[in-house]
Amino acid sequence: MQPFSNQITQLFGIEIPIIQAGMIWASGWRLASAVSNAGGLGVIGSGSMYPNVLKEHIQKYKVASTNPFAVNVPLLYPNIDEHIQIIIDEKVPIVFTSAGNPKTYTSLLKREGIKVVHVVSSSKFALKAQDAGCDAVVAEGFEAGGHNGREETTSFILIPSVAQAVSIPVIAAGGIATGKQMFAAMALGADAVQVGSRFIASNEASCHINFKNAIINTNEGDTQLSLKQLTPVRLLKNKFYEKVNIAELNCNSNEDLQILLGKGRAKKGMFEGQLDDGELEIGQVSSQIKNILPAVEIVNELWDEYNRICNSYCK
Amino acid sequence: MQPFSNQITQLFGIEIPIIQAGMIWASGWRLASAVSNAGGLGVIGSGSMYPNVLKEHIQKYKVASTNPFAVNVPLLYPNIDEHIQIIIDEKVPIVFTSAGNPKTYTSLLKREGIKVVHVVSSSKFALKAQDAGCDAVVAEGFEAGGHNGREETTSFILIPSVAQAVSIPVIAAGGIATGKQMFAAMALGADAVQVGSRFIASNEASCHINFKNAIINTNEGDTQLSLKQLTPVRLLKNKFYEKVNIAELNCNSNEDLQILLGKGRAKKGMFEGQLDDGELEIGQVSSQIKNILPAVEIVNELWDEYNRICNSYCK
Repeated sequence: MQPFSNQITQLFGIEIPIIQAGMIWASGWRLASAVSNAGGLGVIGSGSMYPNVLKEHIQKYKVASTNPFAVNVPLLYPNIDEHIQIIIDEKVPIVFTSAGNPKTYTSLLKREGIKVVHVVSSSKFALKAQDAGCDAVVAEGFEAGGHNGREETTSFILIPSVAQAVSIPVIAAGGIATGKQMFAAMALGADAVQVGSRFIASNEASCHINFKNAIINTNEGDTQLSLKQLTPVRLLKNKFYEKVNIAELNCNSNEDLQILLGKGRAKKGMFEGQLDDGELEIGQVSSQIKNILPAVEIVNELWDEYNRICNSYCK
Repeated sequence: MQPFSNQITQLFGIEIPIIQAGMIWASGWRLASAVSNAGGLGVIGSGSMYPNVLKEHIQKYKVASTNPFAVNVPLLYPNIDEHIQIIIDEKVPIVFTSAGNPKTYTSLLKREGIKVVHVVSSSKFALKAQDAGCDAVVAEGFEAGGHNGREETTSFILIPSVAQAVSIPVIAAGGIATGKQMFAAMALGADAVQVGSRFIASNEASCHINFKNAIINTNEGDTQLSLKQLTPVRLLKNKFYEKVNIAELNCNSNEDLQILLGKGRAKKGMFEGQLDDGELEIGQVSSQIKNILPAVEIVNELWDEYNRICNSYCK
């Protein structure tokens, strides 16, 4: 097989256009290095890390892999300036920013020779990211797990819309756990895919085994975009979700919802494995994930199926 | 080019696996016959028709085309028994049922030699339709216009899930207005596509020109799944939608919502062209529709683009 090459593999210096999503409480150096060593792009999710923890993960990554990797930085994170400084000091080659204005840090990071990718949920935000100087965008559809846009545009609409709107490469996220879905995303105009939930159910993900098992036991219809009054987030429907749902149906105030949400609920659910009381951020596609695998096998399965489908059109 | 053939084209006796959605106030004999004459499957939408009007449309269809066609029957319609009798008397070859239990009429229709297709929003309902004896299912994703499921499963997840769950053919609906989207749907496991909003913006659709113009002026994020307390329906955000939205945010009762909705609001919006006060049912994909075309050109554009993409994998 000839080596694959497109704008994204060239931009990042990787072999396979599969990018692991930077997920809080799940994607540390172990998962990121496994994905990068398999030929994709591993991403360290800094959103659940104190600055010293992030630094440790970057340094451990470098021991585990010499391949390119990225750090995901939610721009609303309180320690953001410390995170950015560590990323620069540690010469992280690629940064994915999300949940904030791409203007704030893109120029600074680019001056340091860092590639910058911003996560968006609409063509309008994709254009803003392009104008801010980003090298690529992640177009994240409504079906994705975790925090999401208010317009609820699904991957079927969002991928071709964003691909038409911008001239920089587009990475599709949301609804992708199989080579078939990867193929559909690429056909709709994506240059690569970003895969979240499928990598939660990997040996190397640092989340709790209860959470991994929850993913592989998810059925169709078991997730819901929730907490729309605060910040929309796709959750697995558990006891905590039901409480939120009742509060929302009863028109409780934002303050009441904030109290109900409390602090540390995502950690409780995803890292400590408290499936009833925790906040469990997963994508709709979890219903199609049936096993926990080493990350290298996930990359290979996706890539092999993608290539088999490409070849099936040529009889 | 060799003639295309698969389970759906064989089942319906058509040339091209493109099915026009049966849409209230828009799809009468004129649109249905134009689509069928172009090689796809035209569908008369009976949901907005009195029995005598349905009969007239079927008879006019037969003058305009000798190709196969279908009638779409929402099973909650008050005149349902009269509609079913007319369909049998007029020897309609194919019926699409929606919004109800497929067990109720499928056996009766099948005994009359009529092919029956049921519209579903989940794999669970797809299996029920298969068990009821349906010949195929329409898997309708969250992005679709009009009435929709509560689980909010998008086409990216729903198509492969339903295709895996049932052994009867699967028609994908929701998010399909281009050959690219048709290709993605087929790659995800569909045997055909059902296209709604794109055919609203056709010369032959019987809806008001104001409504057709509203479709081609829709931007990304301009639709929303609304009225979830009653029956979820995807609407264009207009003044009426804003009133519903405020009522829902204020936790108004179902009775209050029903009063706000009133009667005849869909007719007002889509047939009479009152864009502010009417209920305007359209899909998310409307943001990608930019012109009003003859239905034959819509079928040809979709099919040509689909085939171009298939061939592009074979260099």
